[in-house]
Amino acid sequence: MTKIDIISDAALKNGIRQFLETAPDIYMAGVSVDTVIFGFHHDKLKVLLLRFGNTPYFVLPGGYIKKEEDLDDAALRILQERTELQNIYLEQFYTSGNISRSNEKVAVELAFKMIGTIPNSNWFGQRFVSVCYYALVDDTKVNPVTEAFFTEVKWFDINKLPRVLYDHDNIIQKALKRLQADLDEKLAAFNLLGETFTMLELQKLYESVYQKKLVRTNFQRKMLSLGVLERLEKQYNGKSHKAPYLYRFAQTV
Amino acid sequence: MTKIDIISDAALKNGIRQFLETAPDIYMAGVSVDTVIFGFHHDKLKVLLLRFGNTPYFVLPGGYIKKEEDLDDAALRILQERTELQNIYLEQFYTSGNISRSNEKVAVELAFKMIGTIPNSNWFGQRFVSVCYYALVDDTKVNPVTEAFFTEVKWFDINKLPRVLYDHDNIIQKALKRLQADLDEKLAAFNLLGETFTMLELQKLYESVYQKKLVRTNFQRKMLSLGVLERLEKQYNGKSHKAPYLYRFAQTV
Repeated sequence: MTKIDIISDAALKNGIRQFLETAPDIYMAGVSVDTVIFGFHHDKLKVLLLRFGNTPYFVLPGGYIKKEEDLDDAALRILQERTELQNIYLEQFYTSGNISRSNEKVAVELAFKMIGTIPNSNWFGQRFVSVCYYALVDDTKVNPVTEAFFTEVKWFDINKLPRVLYDHDNIIQKALKRLQADLDEKLAAFNLLGETFTMLELQKLYESVYQKKLVRTNFQRKMLSLGVLERLEKQYNGKSHKAPYLYRFAQTV
Repeated sequence: MTKIDIISDAALKNGIRQFLETAPDIYMAGVSVDTVIFGFHHDKLKVLLLRFGNTPYFVLPGGYIKKEEDLDDAALRILQERTELQNIYLEQFYTSGNISRSNEKVAVELAFKMIGTIPNSNWFGQRFVSVCYYALVDDTKVNPVTEAFFTEVKWFDINKLPRVLYDHDNIIQKALKRLQADLDEKLAAFNLLGETFTMLELQKLYESVYQKKLVRTNFQRKMLSLGVLERLEKQYNGKSHKAPYLYRFAQTV
């Protein structure tokens, strides 16, 4: 089960105040990072979103790049801060830089009014170009963490997203398309299915990512033709001979 | 033939001074754009590079994002300024943001000393995260333009690159890999082969991008299986019946 924390109004105000005081010294201005964390378990594809302050709006887990930090390291740190996930495979897929992506500044200002803080800092008034990464994880292994601006961390079904701020909706759709295009190639890297798995488990993963039912025989033929799967010998343990074959990812040299 | 302009030292100094005075008002700080322009004609794949000042170093055609300009528009504008190419198909493929990419600041400072200008501005001392795009063009249609920092614009064989500054070498290699991966899909968009073309012309394009010889029969089978080519009826014009078939890209609905 996903743990859902709610943080207090006072802690929220304090967190924001502290952030705004120090942000310009710590972070690069004008560039942000957003991560689309897809969660898979059983046959559902979900996306991890954070509730912005105590508003009804959600955003992607994101943050800023420290002045003395590599871009990829920033993405990993941000993900770790929000999910406690480490050593995760993060793929950079897009950088979003339209002027219009900040049109929802109004909503953010509203959010701050609701919180009761009127920031002197212009940090959030800046235009940000956002470098976007995606990951695909087993959502049962994620331990979402709330802090500063975010009062709730929650998995949403990809087809039942809440209202999201900025252009994060567009970023989620772009990430999904890229995941679909990359899945064959990145499958082993996502490390999602455990040491061994059945063809049916693999098919359920594909169906959740492609958002449609696949024909079993075609799917099996396609997967075997990729040359990345290794079929294990059946263990004759006295149980049913109808037990499905187990597969694992072939070791690459 | 590619036109090569050399601009004078005085024009160069003046251009740099003017740029440094106005840059912070015009452009976003901390984010740059670099474009890898692949040129193809006959069977060579080339890359367009600019000579930095009057140094022996070259850089990719790049620039900065105006404060009121979309990221993609900035990339198109920069390309147009350097090559006079318009309506070109530019593909964003990577954002480079390691700290170490600016390690060659020393080289840039050296360059400025050689030019004789010691800039008061810290514009070039900033850390830049660079959003990278690539394009594939017919190099005979490009009209390279020199201005401000760049004293020469030149096509280089992909296998005979000069010394390039920053991490531009790495960016070129990443762009080539992405071009190879995307070629089947983007082929028609690059608009590179004229209205009609032979299978051999297409094969030469692929061989230049993949940097290896391909087997004619396999190549033909693969290309036809993509379903993007339309074979035209041979024109019986009294000449040799051995004239090769002509192809064009099928109209997509």
